[in-house]
Amino acid sequence: MIEARIEEALTWIEPGPVTLIATRHGGRNNVMTISWTMAIDFDGHIVFTSGDWNYSFRAIRANRECVVCIPPASMAETVVDIGMVSGEDTDKFGKFGLTALPAATVSAPLVKECLACLECEVEDIVEPYGFVVMKVKRVWVNDEIEDRRILHAVGDGTFYADGERFDFRKRMEAKLPPGI
Amino acid sequence: MIEARIEEALTWIEPGPVTLIATRHGGRNNVMTISWTMAIDFDGHIVFTSGDWNYSFRAIRANRECVVCIPPASMAETVVDIGMVSGEDTDKFGKFGLTALPAATVSAPLVKECLACLECEVEDIVEPYGFVVMKVKRVWVNDEIEDRRILHAVGDGTFYADGERFDFRKRMEAKLPPGI
Repeated sequence: MIEARIEEALTWIEPGPVTLIATRHGGRNNVMTISWTMAIDFDGHIVFTSGDWNYSFRAIRANRECVVCIPPASMAETVVDIGMVSGEDTDKFGKFGLTALPAATVSAPLVKECLACLECEVEDIVEPYGFVVMKVKRVWVNDEIEDRRILHAVGDGTFYADGERFDFRKRMEAKLPPGI
Repeated sequence: MIEARIEEALTWIEPGPVTLIATRHGGRNNVMTISWTMAIDFDGHIVFTSGDWNYSFRAIRANRECVVCIPPASMAETVVDIGMVSGEDTDKFGKFGLTALPAATVSAPLVKECLACLECEVEDIVEPYGFVVMKVKRVWVNDEIEDRRILHAVGDGTFYADGERFDFRKRMEAKLPPGI
């Protein structure tokens, strides 16, 4: 994967993708499927919602870091299957043939099969909601993946891939954050 | 618009749509464009991020309610334009030809031109993040709109409409919330 500008972080979360969140704890890599994410400012902060029912959440609570990855739509079945098993009893990187690459600022790995990976430092966990507030430290993209569409979960077991694109950059010029 | 089951609320927010959030304050309707939303549980709670820079946020702070609407992709230009002006000096319902319909549980209006509108009661505002935590009270859908695609903001002035659909209901059966 190649490093991208930090300003790009927002553009991977704002569309509302299904994400794969990678963690490392007790010497083992793990990954979970999370749709409940949100951009929260123009300064690289993002949030996701989780709780103790997620095995990965314990790792995040313990070492305050993770990598948020954006899988292409072509990975849809794997993304669903990752969400159906727990890292407590499954080596998900092995089971699903994922490639863990070293990150620069965190011990959790990048997932090479994803379009982008955001190295994140956890700044706050807001209870009772389980809001994990994170600052993106580095952005990595894999530009060798042919399918550039991201995946959106409907929440009822169905998903959509990105379709028609609209370009309103001119129309929105006055409100676009710098560097985007 | 016709009323839908409350369990449907999740399925309108989880995909990560651009939303129009309607408010009513001081006897005037207003609406803002918000992409920073997130589902947070299976019990009808959702959240969006805002702050005092949004005129609508002051209305939400004051009367603790709003209506979160999901526009179809065919409304893309209007959605962008709504985000470029402020309700402080603009009657957005008038300017953009939106139809305000009465809601059942809040004073803020439904927006008839949207695919769905969620009546929301604000339960908490989490500072310093501006997380507006809401409980959905009623779900309304407009099934007469031909374009059923929702719109996703990339954050750089470009947007995507829903494209290819994947159905993994069988694959995810064990994890789907009841009633979905």
